[in-house]
Amino acid sequence: MAQLNEAPIRIGLLGAGTVGSQTARLLVEHREELSRRIGREIELVGVATLNPDDVHFPWIDRSLLTTDTAGLCTRADIVVELIGGLEPARTFVLRALSSGASVVTANKALLAAHGAELYEAAQKNNADIYFEAAVGGAIPIVRPLRESLVGDRVTSMLGIVNGTTNYILDEMTTKGLDFDVALHDAQSKGYAEADPTGDIEGHDAANKAAIMATLAFHTNVGIDDVTVEGITRITADDIAAATAEHKVVKLLAVVSNTEAGVSARVYPALIAQSHPLASVHGSFNAVFVTAEAADDLMFYGRGAGGAPTASAVVGDVVTEARHIAQECTGPAIPLYRNLPKAPIDAAKAVFAVRFLIRDTPGVLAAIAQEFASRGVSINGVNQDLRPTRHDPGYSGELQQLRIVTHLCDETTLRKTVEAVCRLDCVSGEPSILRVLD
Amino acid sequence: MAQLNEAPIRIGLLGAGTVGSQTARLLVEHREELSRRIGREIELVGVATLNPDDVHFPWIDRSLLTTDTAGLCTRADIVVELIGGLEPARTFVLRALSSGASVVTANKALLAAHGAELYEAAQKNNADIYFEAAVGGAIPIVRPLRESLVGDRVTSMLGIVNGTTNYILDEMTTKGLDFDVALHDAQSKGYAEADPTGDIEGHDAANKAAIMATLAFHTNVGIDDVTVEGITRITADDIAAATAEHKVVKLLAVVSNTEAGVSARVYPALIAQSHPLASVHGSFNAVFVTAEAADDLMFYGRGAGGAPTASAVVGDVVTEARHIAQECTGPAIPLYRNLPKAPIDAAKAVFAVRFLIRDTPGVLAAIAQEFASRGVSINGVNQDLRPTRHDPGYSGELQQLRIVTHLCDETTLRKTVEAVCRLDCVSGEPSILRVLD
Repeated sequence: MAQLNEAPIRIGLLGAGTVGSQTARLLVEHREELSRRIGREIELVGVATLNPDDVHFPWIDRSLLTTDTAGLCTRADIVVELIGGLEPARTFVLRALSSGASVVTANKALLAAHGAELYEAAQKNNADIYFEAAVGGAIPIVRPLRESLVGDRVTSMLGIVNGTTNYILDEMTTKGLDFDVALHDAQSKGYAEADPTGDIEGHDAANKAAIMATLAFHTNVGIDDVTVEGITRITADDIAAATAEHKVVKLLAVVSNTEAGVSARVYPALIAQSHPLASVHGSFNAVFVTAEAADDLMFYGRGAGGAPTASAVVGDVVTEARHIAQECTGPAIPLYRNLPKAPIDAAKAVFAVRFLIRDTPGVLAAIAQEFASRGVSINGVNQDLRPTRHDPGYSGELQQLRIVTHLCDETTLRKTVEAVCRLDCVSGEPSILRVLD
Repeated sequence: MAQLNEAPIRIGLLGAGTVGSQTARLLVEHREELSRRIGREIELVGVATLNPDDVHFPWIDRSLLTTDTAGLCTRADIVVELIGGLEPARTFVLRALSSGASVVTANKALLAAHGAELYEAAQKNNADIYFEAAVGGAIPIVRPLRESLVGDRVTSMLGIVNGTTNYILDEMTTKGLDFDVALHDAQSKGYAEADPTGDIEGHDAANKAAIMATLAFHTNVGIDDVTVEGITRITADDIAAATAEHKVVKLLAVVSNTEAGVSARVYPALIAQSHPLASVHGSFNAVFVTAEAADDLMFYGRGAGGAPTASAVVGDVVTEARHIAQECTGPAIPLYRNLPKAPIDAAKAVFAVRFLIRDTPGVLAAIAQEFASRGVSINGVNQDLRPTRHDPGYSGELQQLRIVTHLCDETTLRKTVEAVCRLDCVSGEPSILRVLD
């Protein structure tokens, strides 16, 4: 508290959208309390935006608005980057770091693409880069990984880290909707963007998977290292089959560190209704962490939204302001382990495959033979589900056959499924989903 | 990394029980990696224990064992207190702080009783006191409150923070056991102590509630400020009634900050099966946090056990070692808000009351009249549950009558229940449980 008479710590905000607006509000409305917690005054010195005329939030003096983003980067002690996207965000963040400012960002795409470069630039300039809001919105997950679990070894993380897809899958489950209908519904309610590609194809979750893996395994994992599968191929039949087996379908970001190396993947998976992640609904996010000593942990909360994301951003600002007041820095993002990336085939999984079959004598034997001849071991077979699709070239009724495998590699599984689909008794497109052990 | 050639940071461990043993293991086995993350070498310089001959874990050199606890407190840079209880733990922690060492502790009883004294001693000596393991074992909850949510305002927290009672209530729910049977079962499996008082009467959870409230509201809340009710009066009938209404009974630590002031309470409560806390089973803990900007958050994980607790302890050791390496300190535990404590009656709640009644004409009218005359508004009545207890003085069959109120204060509710119990048609002891809104 002795330093309250020093010059205030200057905070520059890049971006004046939903999160920027709420971040400004918290910094202005809670200024006195935050300064007290920091031990030194803080001051919002500028809000950079391309179109000041479009900014209408009432809690800042309009003289703070500026179009000179580059200039703000060099006259702030802490630059809060809420522009999003790769450029010009990357250029501004690097400019801020090279002028000795520390950076707080919520930009997952930027970190997934250029994280290593930015972490190195921060360290070189004796500055910090904090990004709690980039994964899981308001959920404190980055700080626990950087600090709380620093004495432990994380072995895997499973995250529901995209609210749009979680909302769509929830609607499909509770209302029996098809994917297209649920997507349209989400768009009309503002839960999905007009161009939903980044969410439904899994790219947003993939950015977060890259950041999670980098933090958990102290190894640079970029967006290009992440294998991605979205939810566009999930059908109402998949959901019905899952429900019948007391499971739910969730889009997961999965990162793990095994003897084969580090892997980061995004895919829809079947998980048991009793798993803690199964009760994460709507726009909520959750990250499930397994560590050697701590065992299982889960972090749950709002994955997006102006105020929740701003809460995480301001938490980072306060932490960094304390460092500046004390002339120290936070823990660097350590990439020293340089673990190898696991080959795609190294990740064995349990798969649930659904085929549409003509129920003729010998069909199960023929299909089982294709699995057996490739060494894919079958854990369970279910032929009880009522059929829901029809093959115009077949006069009888098609049935669903659902096979759950033991652990097997994906390439062998896909070859097996292709072979099964060439059988006369099998019709249409199969569905393949991973099952969480 | 430039400081790796300086003298190692000395760590002294007080206590060599389950957590001490695992803490020593992590510090020794991960020493190189931890030192790298800290930027300076660390060294375990002593393990203090009353009975060195009883210590058998193989990962430390026996020459580290010492009975000179006081001496170890003054020759370590970081003192890890895992003795437990109030004295001599308090004296050793104060001795460590006054000699300039920082302290990491898992001692919830000590913090709940003497927290303000210890936090002040740390600040006066420019030292830190960290205690992630004191609430929720391995779960990072203290650090998120101290740092991630520092820019936000926490309004309430609900925690399942005692694994023993959670295990007992789970067993009662899944197996229909009575409390005494479930307790005995838990004792025989090692989930409850031979003297289970501290757990089942809610005192352990109360310690954690005091710490949670202090951190959340920046106001000193001690163990004497916590109102406590344990689970010893929960019956198999209570559990059956809960299940019939799709609810579960959980022992909750509840802290809140309202206009009436700060309150901290421990009580068993009915919560909906769909609430995220309802799926916290067995020895797991979880803390549900509501903040103004972040909205709802939940933190989940192992609440006890050697390795999980040691993970949290070592995370704190690493954080503090980084501070020492950088010659700075962590955020103080700020008690500057000095909020008033809410009067016990200020906390209104929804109550579920079960009476045993002789089902004679006019009984419901008579009971409803007692509620109405005291202004206690009834939200729901249920008389369908089959009776399970008998009154020897009554020849007919007793029925259960369950009444759920609207929000009301506890004093009025208890007076109403007493009046109802004086009616001729009511028999035996009533059951009163809070319902989580």
